[in-house]
Amino acid sequence: MSDPNCIFCKIASGQIPATKVLEDEYAVAFLDIGPLAEGHTLLIPRDHFETVDQMSSEKVGGMLRHLPALVKAVRASTGCEGVNVLQNNGRIAHQVVMHVHFHVIPRNRGDEFHFNWPAGRYPEGRMEQLAQAIRENL
Amino acid sequence: MSDPNCIFCKIASGQIPATKVLEDEYAVAFLDIGPLAEGHTLLIPRDHFETVDQMSSEKVGGMLRHLPALVKAVRASTGCEGVNVLQNNGRIAHQVVMHVHFHVIPRNRGDEFHFNWPAGRYPEGRMEQLAQAIRENL
Repeated sequence: MSDPNCIFCKIASGQIPATKVLEDEYAVAFLDIGPLAEGHTLLIPRDHFETVDQMSSEKVGGMLRHLPALVKAVRASTGCEGVNVLQNNGRIAHQVVMHVHFHVIPRNRGDEFHFNWPAGRYPEGRMEQLAQAIRENL
Repeated sequence: MSDPNCIFCKIASGQIPATKVLEDEYAVAFLDIGPLAEGHTLLIPRDHFETVDQMSSEKVGGMLRHLPALVKAVRASTGCEGVNVLQNNGRIAHQVVMHVHFHVIPRNRGDEFHFNWPAGRYPEGRMEQLAQAIRENL
């Protein structure tokens, strides 16, 4: 369950070095070398999956059970005011390394990372139509 | 484990309506009424927690084991090209409702949601120092 051309697989296996903070059978976490803020950390599955929808419930649960402790430890270590957890699926969504990774991004007043929030509205009936399609695809 | 003033607790309990797509003992998922894109869905814990670092491993694992199926179903239902999974902790990080929620945001070429990526670099030694602090706080 490893891709020989994947840099995160090589980090998980120890073939190439990284500044790791935790690892177990499901997960590895290490500092991002191009941080959006001090303490920016990546939580990845040990096995290779390109996108989160390719993972089993067991593997994603096993990886993400570390998320609370990791967010808490990043907060305690950096003193940040808030945290974004961000996971990108597909190039269009800003995914650069094609191995699932959850970014833990410390946030502080005046920092440089930002996103917009162009909230829209559904026309009458459209939300229920989409929900029905999602339920059928689950 | 419910906050009587929390709108997401009221949605979880059924006190106020929402367009739900799944629910079980750990999790509820429903469409965001102010979507960033068609099919924008929220996955929340049934119990009330303000931020993800307040959750137990068991509760976060129980909630997020649904994430792969939910992302897959949103993709299948909308035909989107990618998906961002985003969870905001704290006002500074854009959290508006103070009950943990994971946004599942469909992405398509030319859509309006965007974020920047101002990646920095660590001075010599700083990354290992931070990693050591994170390990000690885990």
